[in-house]
Amino acid sequence: MLMKPDQHAIKTIVRMALFEDAPWGDLTSEALLPADLQTSAQLVAREEGVLCGEDLFTSAMSETGPVAVNFLKHDSDSFSAADVLAQLSGPAHSILKAERVALNFVQRLSGIATLTAKYVAETAGTKTRIVDTRKTTPGLRLFERYAVRCGGGLNHRFSLSDALLAKDNHLAALRSSRGEDLTTDLRAAFQGLSHTTHIEVEVDELDQIEPILAAGIDTIMLDNFSIEDLRAGVRQVAGRAHVEASGGISLERIREIASTGVDLISVGALTHSVRSIDLGLDFPKPSS
Amino acid sequence: MLMKPDQHAIKTIVRMALFEDAPWGDLTSEALLPADLQTSAQLVAREEGVLCGEDLFTSAMSETGPVAVNFLKHDSDSFSAADVLAQLSGPAHSILKAERVALNFVQRLSGIATLTAKYVAETAGTKTRIVDTRKTTPGLRLFERYAVRCGGGLNHRFSLSDALLAKDNHLAALRSSRGEDLTTDLRAAFQGLSHTTHIEVEVDELDQIEPILAAGIDTIMLDNFSIEDLRAGVRQVAGRAHVEASGGISLERIREIASTGVDLISVGALTHSVRSIDLGLDFPKPSS
Amino acid sequence: MLMKPDQHAIKTIVRMALFEDAPWGDLTSEALLPADLQTSAQLVAREEGVLCGEDLFTSAMSETGPVAVNFLKHDSDSFSAADVLAQLSGPAHSILKAERVALNFVQRLSGIATLTAKYVAETAGTKTRIVDTRKTTPGLRLFERYAVRCGGGLNHRFSLSDALLAKDNHLAALRSSRGEDLTTDLRAAFQGLSHTTHIEVEVDELDQIEPILAAGIDTIMLDNFSIEDLRAGVRQVAGRAHVEASGGISLERIREIASTGVDLISVGALTHSVRSIDLGLDFPKPSS
Amino acid sequence: MLMKPDQHAIKTIVRMALFEDAPWGDLTSEALLPADLQTSAQLVAREEGVLCGEDLFTSAMSETGPVAVNFLKHDSDSFSAADVLAQLSGPAHSILKAERVALNFVQRLSGIATLTAKYVAETAGTKTRIVDTRKTTPGLRLFERYAVRCGGGLNHRFSLSDALLAKDNHLAALRSSRGEDLTTDLRAAFQGLSHTTHIEVEVDELDQIEPILAAGIDTIMLDNFSIEDLRAGVRQVAGRAHVEASGGISLERIREIASTGVDLISVGALTHSVRSIDLGLDFPKPSS
Amino acid sequence: MLMKPDQHAIKTIVRMALFEDAPWGDLTSEALLPADLQTSAQLVAREEGVLCGEDLFTSAMSETGPVAVNFLKHDSDSFSAADVLAQLSGPAHSILKAERVALNFVQRLSGIATLTAKYVAETAGTKTRIVDTRKTTPGLRLFERYAVRCGGGLNHRFSLSDALLAKDNHLAALRSSRGEDLTTDLRAAFQGLSHTTHIEVEVDELDQIEPILAAGIDTIMLDNFSIEDLRAGVRQVAGRAHVEASGGISLERIREIASTGVDLISVGALTHSVRSIDLGLDFPKPSS
Amino acid sequence: MLMKPDQHAIKTIVRMALFEDAPWGDLTSEALLPADLQTSAQLVAREEGVLCGEDLFTSAMSETGPVAVNFLKHDSDSFSAADVLAQLSGPAHSILKAERVALNFVQRLSGIATLTAKYVAETAGTKTRIVDTRKTTPGLRLFERYAVRCGGGLNHRFSLSDALLAKDNHLAALRSSRGEDLTTDLRAAFQGLSHTTHIEVEVDELDQIEPILAAGIDTIMLDNFSIEDLRAGVRQVAGRAHVEASGGISLERIREIASTGVDLISVGALTHSVRSIDLGLDFPKPSS
Repeated sequence: MLMKPDQHAIKTIVRMALFEDAPWGDLTSEALLPADLQTSAQLVAREEGVLCGEDLFTSAMSETGPVAVNFLKHDSDSFSAADVLAQLSGPAHSILKAERVALNFVQRLSGIATLTAKYVAETAGTKTRIVDTRKTTPGLRLFERYAVRCGGGLNHRFSLSDALLAKDNHLAALRSSRGEDLTTDLRAAFQGLSHTTHIEVEVDELDQIEPILAAGIDTIMLDNFSIEDLRAGVRQVAGRAHVEASGGISLERIREIASTGVDLISVGALTHSVRSIDLGLDFPKPSS
Repeated sequence: MLMKPDQHAIKTIVRMALFEDAPWGDLTSEALLPADLQTSAQLVAREEGVLCGEDLFTSAMSETGPVAVNFLKHDSDSFSAADVLAQLSGPAHSILKAERVALNFVQRLSGIATLTAKYVAETAGTKTRIVDTRKTTPGLRLFERYAVRCGGGLNHRFSLSDALLAKDNHLAALRSSRGEDLTTDLRAAFQGLSHTTHIEVEVDELDQIEPILAAGIDTIMLDNFSIEDLRAGVRQVAGRAHVEASGGISLERIREIASTGVDLISVGALTHSVRSIDLGLDFPKPSS
Repeated sequence: MLMKPDQHAIKTIVRMALFEDAPWGDLTSEALLPADLQTSAQLVAREEGVLCGEDLFTSAMSETGPVAVNFLKHDSDSFSAADVLAQLSGPAHSILKAERVALNFVQRLSGIATLTAKYVAETAGTKTRIVDTRKTTPGLRLFERYAVRCGGGLNHRFSLSDALLAKDNHLAALRSSRGEDLTTDLRAAFQGLSHTTHIEVEVDELDQIEPILAAGIDTIMLDNFSIEDLRAGVRQVAGRAHVEASGGISLERIREIASTGVDLISVGALTHSVRSIDLGLDFPKPSS
Repeated sequence: MLMKPDQHAIKTIVRMALFEDAPWGDLTSEALLPADLQTSAQLVAREEGVLCGEDLFTSAMSETGPVAVNFLKHDSDSFSAADVLAQLSGPAHSILKAERVALNFVQRLSGIATLTAKYVAETAGTKTRIVDTRKTTPGLRLFERYAVRCGGGLNHRFSLSDALLAKDNHLAALRSSRGEDLTTDLRAAFQGLSHTTHIEVEVDELDQIEPILAAGIDTIMLDNFSIEDLRAGVRQVAGRAHVEASGGISLERIREIASTGVDLISVGALTHSVRSIDLGLDFPKPSS
Repeated sequence: MLMKPDQHAIKTIVRMALFEDAPWGDLTSEALLPADLQTSAQLVAREEGVLCGEDLFTSAMSETGPVAVNFLKHDSDSFSAADVLAQLSGPAHSILKAERVALNFVQRLSGIATLTAKYVAETAGTKTRIVDTRKTTPGLRLFERYAVRCGGGLNHRFSLSDALLAKDNHLAALRSSRGEDLTTDLRAAFQGLSHTTHIEVEVDELDQIEPILAAGIDTIMLDNFSIEDLRAGVRQVAGRAHVEASGGISLERIREIASTGVDLISVGALTHSVRSIDLGLDFPKPSS
Repeated sequence: MLMKPDQHAIKTIVRMALFEDAPWGDLTSEALLPADLQTSAQLVAREEGVLCGEDLFTSAMSETGPVAVNFLKHDSDSFSAADVLAQLSGPAHSILKAERVALNFVQRLSGIATLTAKYVAETAGTKTRIVDTRKTTPGLRLFERYAVRCGGGLNHRFSLSDALLAKDNHLAALRSSRGEDLTTDLRAAFQGLSHTTHIEVEVDELDQIEPILAAGIDTIMLDNFSIEDLRAGVRQVAGRAHVEASGGISLERIREIASTGVDLISVGALTHSVRSIDLGLDFPKPSS
């Protein structure tokens, strides 16, 4: 039960992208193609990966004309090079006008899903979950978070508005503005929060853990901890909060980090450095 | 004279991104920081690169409050790891609320500028220019094209609306719908075009070049040609049109491709597979 | 540290409201007033209450011209009948054009803050907190939730997106679609959730509490429970989750409900049935 | 022939409200319900009232999925407690996602229609009509005015742009800026008005009536007049203009005010202090 | 006291127009001008006319940069060929980017004001007023109506929403759907209208006047009447309603039509067929 | 293969125009027509012309209800006075609500197409093409350019962003900021341009032609040249660039200008001074 982006959100971003790519029409097709030319096409993988973005692809095609799109693979599915992912048929004008926009969406999102799946695979057999960050592309967060889920990852908070995450700067400011010990200061600060607000605090050193846990929090983030310290942190928290590892995460280190027993590893690279998966539209060769 | 994105376009996308990242406020800062806390901060490079996005960064800060931002490096400038790129001062609430959005923009765009600069460096000493493609992030084309220019590249057409670029599918369709030879068919198709429309045609084989040139075009794109065929193509065109190489381009092959004498090499990877440059905000350590 | 609505959100709704109230100008002032007439005015309370909406009021005035607004009372402050809440001066055209819109906002929001304060007063001396619901006016949720905070209440989840709240229909559907016991089914359902997602479940009967708590939740909502059952529920939960009372809440019953030891009482009436507080603009009498 | 709000206006506000209530999806239904679960439901009245808002309710349901909605009562119809107002069937996800938004609209608007109908009932047998004011909820004026009509009331001017209504401040300003008697000043001020502009002037005292009528106006508003003065005012106007009573109107005083022979009574409370009518969605009990 | 369009309405349409004219920048100025080049310029009339649009012109300039604009003539003023209407100074980039958009607005609106002034001049010495129609350019009604006022004309209703104007098709439909005489039918139809709604009815024949006046209307429109019939119509109405002449109006016939004593003549041509007034920006000659 | 405006662009502008013309409904039809009245109607030409705008007309009708529209003539077709251009049937409410907006679009655009066709007719038998300018109505450029094509004209650049057109002010500024001869300066300025950017330069005198051609440009604009100088200019350019005549163009002079051999004549009047073509909706006479 993988929550898909809202159909209206999809329509809105697809229309924006189509307008960006053809503000006053597709000069080439208008000049060269007969108005009523029908065609078929295939969305083909040129390398392996995990699919994400079928609804955006389909929507881009539908917005430009009556194009029928039939996906053979679905979001979250793995595919191999040369797999046919979808079959299309409809007006050549519509398909060619939507082609680049449709591909831009599905190639990027599949890139994120594919990369996430690699991180997730490294944690197989542990209870550790891979989560994303707010390092997403401006305007695409809703979709990039969905791609992370398609790859088997979990989402962190959506935005600054839906969970509290205190970092060192916040704690330093709190300390200088209130007079008491950290636990008391935090408790006071958490007073006016909705009971539904998840509270997470980042720590840099092991001895910050105890006073922060005492303030009543939900997740503790161990930032840039060594493997030994992560292990010590997990022991110290002892189930009283979720433990999240962050900072300096790479695919190579994931398995070792997961072995420390942390609940969550947050990975900025899932969304801030994405290689598009190579997908393309193949048209039938004209019988000469 | 590097054309910067319009200030209104910048404001619009920055507001969208800030809204995406804080639809109903920054829970953490509101709970933990005094309302009137002032702070300073530095934008610091954690690796080398080429800067792009200073106006977006500044705009994100300004939209959240009276934050003064002073950039020490500017768009197109190279920087080294540990360089201070900008100095900030203003309300802590404003800086922390804008931090992630401001970084998301400048890290991505600097990633594009940095990558472009690497491709451009490989063509040093030749007349070949690196150009981008329409494989941009939906919603960010205006800014990603600017990043390409900051890296020393040129832009290809902006969209389907501002230049004609006929590919094999267009030519195949033209052939089957009109009865005459390719040159005549193309000439007829180009009839109703504005005189300001640049006409580019993609070819897969050397013997397509002559009939297409005869139709009166501005640029010929040699798609997936071998080095020898590129060389032969350039010779054949002989200055009658720009020659663009495309397809299967990688940083490793750029210099050899440029050596064939092509005018332009278009590189999708400039924008479709971007690694964000590692930049961060450093705050002054609290004097304990 | 009361989180205020974002300035851009304020500007957006104020402009919308001003456009709704004067799509093509203020016929009356244009016909009757000299263009350069300056005036002063006072925002006066005609009954007692708790203030909310000063920024919206000020913004409405500023959007129509250079009107100086000086609030003597502030959001969350109590006021009495005849209190002067703010002093204004500026172009008569601007003040009269913004008057109705500015009052519509501040009267409604002060109505919510005032009503909330009455509920909160009834819980004085208990640990019980008053929280709002999603029964807000379409388009004004951000502001009405702020008004609840101004009145001393807490907010419940903002929307369907930022916390999980399972009601009887959800549980019934879950039961029929999965084969196992309730605890197991819930655990499975909660699998893909972000660790920051607050989980709340509504129960109608005491014996549902145990299996639901066992699934690992954050808040349990006791819906339409008698006073005795609320007391029993609180005892049974024994601090393993927040306890929220809901359904059939009225100002008269609040104190008794709070006495049962519940952590939260949610009150739809805070926002679904609001009486505007009577406030008005007084202009200086012309010296005849 | 009751003018219904435009379908596009309905769609626009419904989409806004759905987005406000689920900016990135309905976490609960996604986690707990099978994607293809179908259900039926009934919109049931929990108290008596007058219906308003069926199109908004239906639109909210349609926007979230293929939900069939069949209203048994219609806008302007009275209903009793326990009446079934509408029957629904469709995807459980869609109905639950739209439920709160759909109810928020129809409960509020039915609250306005119900209250208006009470005022209108008090004027039965007289020629006096109940009219609304501009004291509407920002963003909902179009719909709240419709609710007033559903309750049997009439609308006053929509906005500052579509009729002239001069109050004491306008008259005072006019007096000080022009040199002549009131009648002459008003005539001069009305010069540039469109012939379609309705002209209404508010008076505080009986002796203002004659000079104002002499300027050629359409409606005279008697503000905060005693019953005797209202009666005197109606006699004095003698059919030369509509007479509107305003200020300090309550349900208890309506009948007496109407007995004075005024044409119109304007009632701010119709829209500024609305109690939502208690309506709810009932789902079929699961056969256990 | 000429009501000027709202500053927000001006900003909105100016930004739209600037975006339409430079969606991704001004290629020419960026390539050819130094970034910091300052210049002055003059807005000069190349033929005589009546000015309208100074705020739009100024706003277009301000939106592109810190351009100082000083108008020497103002909206509604007449000017002669060669008159300097405004002086500008500021960044050359800004002035050149806004030039075409600024001129497009002021040339068109001055065209309308100038044409209106010609019609108005023909009615000099009569009580007849020239009014516009709804035959305006889509998107520009607010501004074109203002231009009519600048030329000395009055406005008719703004839209279908702010006044009732029944034409022959409405009357025919009314007749077939209701059983009674025209007066009774109209009275019934007018029942639910706001008292502020102006009621106008169009007639084709003299004998329709009496039954329509009897229904209680504000204006009667005599459509395509001969001069004699207009005169007869005015006599028959005898001050019981405004009389408007419409249909087949031309500048040549205005004076004769006005001589019949009609109150209003509505002229579609004021806005549906506009010749832009020839205005241009003159830059100082470079001293060679 | 005449590129039609995008369906989304059409929908957007039509909705805007309908909202402008009926922000809160059509008072007249609501008051006078039965809700379910069906009618038919014909769009009839009252003078001859060239049609443009059928999709806008149809869209306006469709947006207001299920109106069937069948065009008998199509965009670019000529028609005579009294020709029936389209047949409509559907709800009377819908047709009457859309009537004015639908006509406003098609009358204006047909006015442009008709005027363009007259200019084009004057160039019959020559190779000279008529092109438009950026002197279009703000907000309607997409549609007015289409109307020019319907009349047989070509389009010039769409905006400042899609082609370079250097005028005298640009050249003067270039000269003063760079030190070298014109050819060298221009070459330097053109350096960073996309290869797809069309370069056009305006000249006032014959001796500017040679150095400008030497810089490598695509089109040369001869501004306000005498017939002899145009002829001399064409001879001098000798096919090395397109030649465009501009300035002081009128219908009377077109044939003579075309006789000079210029490739293009740009005509601002095509869009800056448009007379709407007289079209109207005829409804069946009620059988009395």
